[in-house]
Amino acid sequence: MTLALDAAAQDLLFREARTANTFTDEPVSDEQIQAIYDLVKYAPTAMNQQPLRITLVRSPEARERLVNLMSDGNKAKTAAAPLVAILAQDNEFHHELPTLFPHFPQAKDVVFAERPAREASAAMNATLQAAYFIIGVRAAGLAAGPMLGYDAAGINKEFFADGDHSVVTVINIGKPGEDAWYPRSPRLAYDEVVTTV
Amino acid sequence: MTLALDAAAQDLLFREARTANTFTDEPVSDEQIQAIYDLVKYAPTAMNQQPLRITLVRSPEARERLVNLMSDGNKAKTAAAPLVAILAQDNEFHHELPTLFPHFPQAKDVVFAERPAREASAAMNATLQAAYFIIGVRAAGLAAGPMLGYDAAGINKEFFADGDHSVVTVINIGKPGEDAWYPRSPRLAYDEVVTTV
Repeated sequence: MTLALDAAAQDLLFREARTANTFTDEPVSDEQIQAIYDLVKYAPTAMNQQPLRITLVRSPEARERLVNLMSDGNKAKTAAAPLVAILAQDNEFHHELPTLFPHFPQAKDVVFAERPAREASAAMNATLQAAYFIIGVRAAGLAAGPMLGYDAAGINKEFFADGDHSVVTVINIGKPGEDAWYPRSPRLAYDEVVTTV
Repeated sequence: MTLALDAAAQDLLFREARTANTFTDEPVSDEQIQAIYDLVKYAPTAMNQQPLRITLVRSPEARERLVNLMSDGNKAKTAAAPLVAILAQDNEFHHELPTLFPHFPQAKDVVFAERPAREASAAMNATLQAAYFIIGVRAAGLAAGPMLGYDAAGINKEFFADGDHSVVTVINIGKPGEDAWYPRSPRLAYDEVVTTV
């Protein structure tokens, strides 16, 4: 037993979990999203900056606006999923930094004074958090269907009027439905990925 | 019970796991890294592209070259950790794509013909995989100490002579040692992160 994590958890999070393209009608509650967030919020980001922001697209009107901005292959499943979440980075995350990272209160003004530095850092760290969130969705016994095919500028304009947020991924969430996935595609072998120096 | 993942696994991966700054002398074996990789390799990337590459820095000579490229605050812990891994993105990942994503064999030449498109996609997807890897280190009962403070251009040149890899993060790995971490810094509350439209 090389891993400390129990086998059922390994299956739930990694081995049996799959990216879903269809879902049942079973709704996903705010309580479930809160439980996911309250678990994955502990995973690390650089200087604890936590730039991820999550928009739950629940109203039919907002769902329609989002579907119109998805690429053609993603429209039908985004329209049909029980819940759709827009994961975005807050490019003004530095305002919270003196509270979030009290070890280095000057970081806000020294490291992140310029917007390009903030955007680069927010992109990386919100992407880490998006991965943690996908694992969290699986921890809730749900399937995630993360997508990158959309009009990003359109989503940023339509859903983040402040001009300070950039979409990282859009994720369909729910219980997997009929024919929810293709056969699993191959993974690279250990020796193709890991080298020792 | 809102989550399907058992409480012990929640603690192991998220609630009790911490970013470690000191480690015991207990070595980290190749078998442990292989078990981690063989678990987290199943987590999703866009078009299954899997651009993450991992370099285990085991020889004293390589460790010294790496330590010299870390920022001052990271030198001592990088020198002392039982194992240090350089996580990098392969900017030429598209060569594997027809095998990895047989649903869309043209992607290699249509979507990823140009290096900037490959670098952007590799950055995002290798970052997702870096997050999965951190979770995997914790799944092995180990602590991860991911770092971003280093001379990135120097690491790319020193460790990836082909010019085709870019460092994503450097991670110290081992059993946490004495005073391994600060008190946990605050996390944003659900209502600060999640909005509904």
